Amino acid sequence: MSHNLFLRNVRPMAGPATNVLIENSRIAAMGLDLAAPADIPSEDGKGHLLLPGLVEAHTHLDKSLLGLPWYKNEVGPKLLDKIDNERLNKRRLNMDPYTQSFRQTVQSSRLGTTHIRSHVDVDTDHGMWGVEGIMKMRAECHEIIDVEIVAFPQSGLLRRPGTLELMHEAMKLGSEVVGGLDPCAIDRDPKGHLDAVFGLCQTYGKALDIHLHEPGEMGAFSFDLIMERTRALGMQGKVTVSHAFCLGWPDRDLVDPLIEQIAELDIAIMTTGPASRPAPPIRRLIAAGIRVCSGSDGIRDTWGPYGNGDMLERAMFVALRNNCRRDDEMRLAFDVVTSGGAKVMELPDYGIGIGCQADLLLVPGEAVADAIVSRSPFRRVIKRGKIVARDGASIASAP
Amino acid sequence: MSHNLFLRNVRPMAGPATNVLIENSRIAAMGLDLAAPADIPSEDGKGHLLLPGLVEAHTHLDKSLLGLPWYKNEVGPKLLDKIDNERLNKRRLNMDPYTQSFRQTVQSSRLGTTHIRSHVDVDTDHGMWGVEGIMKMRAECHEIIDVEIVAFPQSGLLRRPGTLELMHEAMKLGSEVVGGLDPCAIDRDPKGHLDAVFGLCQTYGKALDIHLHEPGEMGAFSFDLIMERTRALGMQGKVTVSHAFCLGWPDRDLVDPLIEQIAELDIAIMTTGPASRPAPPIRRLIAAGIRVCSGSDGIRDTWGPYGNGDMLERAMFVALRNNCRRDDEMRLAFDVVTSGGAKVMELPDYGIGIGCQADLLLVPGEAVADAIVSRSPFRRVIKRGKIVARDGASIASAP
Repeated sequence: MSHNLFLRNVRPMAGPATNVLIENSRIAAMGLDLAAPADIPSEDGKGHLLLPGLVEAHTHLDKSLLGLPWYKNEVGPKLLDKIDNERLNKRRLNMDPYTQSFRQTVQSSRLGTTHIRSHVDVDTDHGMWGVEGIMKMRAECHEIIDVEIVAFPQSGLLRRPGTLELMHEAMKLGSEVVGGLDPCAIDRDPKGHLDAVFGLCQTYGKALDIHLHEPGEMGAFSFDLIMERTRALGMQGKVTVSHAFCLGWPDRDLVDPLIEQIAELDIAIMTTGPASRPAPPIRRLIAAGIRVCSGSDGIRDTWGPYGNGDMLERAMFVALRNNCRRDDEMRLAFDVVTSGGAKVMELPDYGIGIGCQADLLLVPGEAVADAIVSRSPFRRVIKRGKIVARDGASIASAP
Repeated sequence: MSHNLFLRNVRPMAGPATNVLIENSRIAAMGLDLAAPADIPSEDGKGHLLLPGLVEAHTHLDKSLLGLPWYKNEVGPKLLDKIDNERLNKRRLNMDPYTQSFRQTVQSSRLGTTHIRSHVDVDTDHGMWGVEGIMKMRAECHEIIDVEIVAFPQSGLLRRPGTLELMHEAMKLGSEVVGGLDPCAIDRDPKGHLDAVFGLCQTYGKALDIHLHEPGEMGAFSFDLIMERTRALGMQGKVTVSHAFCLGWPDRDLVDPLIEQIAELDIAIMTTGPASRPAPPIRRLIAAGIRVCSGSDGIRDTWGPYGNGDMLERAMFVALRNNCRRDDEMRLAFDVVTSGGAKVMELPDYGIGIGCQADLLLVPGEAVADAIVSRSPFRRVIKRGKIVARDGASIASAP
């Protein structure tokens, strides 16, 4: 179903005030002289900033504890502690993927997100519970948001026999992207892990989005193996490396050659702007022409209590992590949570331009940087030309 | 003037619900069986968390641009670029210290801060403009907040002749603490700078709070000189080192001996939890018995656009920077923005206990960590037994 809408007095990207005509869910015309057609709903923009819909390019919709009782976190310090703790407690904590993903999706939408890429756990304890739950949710939430699913072997692909078969099942069910993680650190078999995930990509003709937390030289080694396969299989433009902490290493002799090849192979980088880990340097990546996106990662889950789905807040984290202060630097962080994500998710017709799909955010503010640092709760969110959230209230309600 | 108040159904530090009787601005009694006296105003706590008032232990009240038009930041990358840009533009931008500090103080108070330590610029271009403005403001805001002034030679003490004389003037006017900064990097004369600031402390019998951004070995050298003087002058317990990035260096052979001496000399550390710089490791500092506090640093100023005065958000930054995830780790970050700051500012009778001054915060939440990650806007702030802010609205209004 398509929608028409007339927006009066809005400021695209903090520029001069104008009017915007949306027809059939697309931006049809823009201009100060544009008059409101009689038969189309009209909305007073009140001079608010008109921004493209925010893109949540890395989260875990099936992990959130939103709406459940407070989870007292007493989990151990290692990555495997967190992985095992979560897998062993999912059912006990009533983490139903349909319900929990619904809650997070509504939360994200009401804050301005119009597109989500979600990794979804695939493991031998839960099979397709996650993928099927998210698929049910996204069908019901189609009006407010678009959701892309990455089949994600969170507990390891090879160390837990049977997982690879389940990954095949998840792809056959309709997952859009193949996931993977830490070929050395988790599966302890980088060749085996990477051959398996790239094999899945080849079998189903899908892109790859792999978690790479591995630090320094180990991460650079895994990255090398990923690039080898990207080149050999002609998967340029189809691979995303998430987190990529090794790109934040201080040793430029380690990092610079990686950046050069990442650019050449058009591999995309996802960073959450983590404060406690080395992080990919967004200025250098963007200057090299690399697509950079961001995401909330887990929101209020057994891994940690943080997160609220606000991608303007995420832009602030990315900006703070990269010591952005000037308005032009803040704009880089804004692009990461909007057009950067759109490029990674290959969204057609994204943005604020004639012909673009009308996925938009209205927010009070004086400048794009102001939107990031003020993060007003008075937002209006438009999905395919329809207002789907207003001042924090969504048209959808989660179970 | 003192106040009485009866709080029903509140949960001190997320513990079991109880009632609290405040008499003469102090906590007089606590207990579930406590009945509301007939002649005292009563407030329904609604089961909210009862927390001690938040302590903003490092900010710059005279630098904020709150309430002024958006400042498009195009400042250069070096520390001196930012220092000079600010000094040269203060009057042009109408940064009146009285007005701007009033705006920030009301903003902080309505979010739960009950005590502020503010560095205030002292330089040859502006003389006592800052100190006098903040002093006027704090006299007028006495009902909602307590403010302590650090006379701060932001533009350098020795490189701009005349500044030391102004520092004397600021101390004579009644500043409570002597400030300093980067003895090597800014004044380029560590002995000269430190002898001068410690000399001011001796002359006026005041404590020291020195900014130390200097990295790695240079920072460790300055720290050594600070400790030498702290010991020689018997100033144990009277020195705070703010930022102290050098304590975040990965080289334990550099950092561990520093931590040992910092603990021995009872020097306090202030960290904002900076995402883009090495940061003091709060776990190790607190385990060594060191007092650790935090602050917003500049809020919406010519240095950068960030900040809103919310010390619960600051606790989140400190927690994120230190990779706190478990509830007990989140509690460390909470202590830093409350009791840690109180210890650094030597606040008498701070906390939630019989006899303590009733500087308190009521906020919805399930756990202390929840208060930090949810940061509800529905807060009630109590200063000396009086409710001074409710749901974001302060009893005070800034010019």
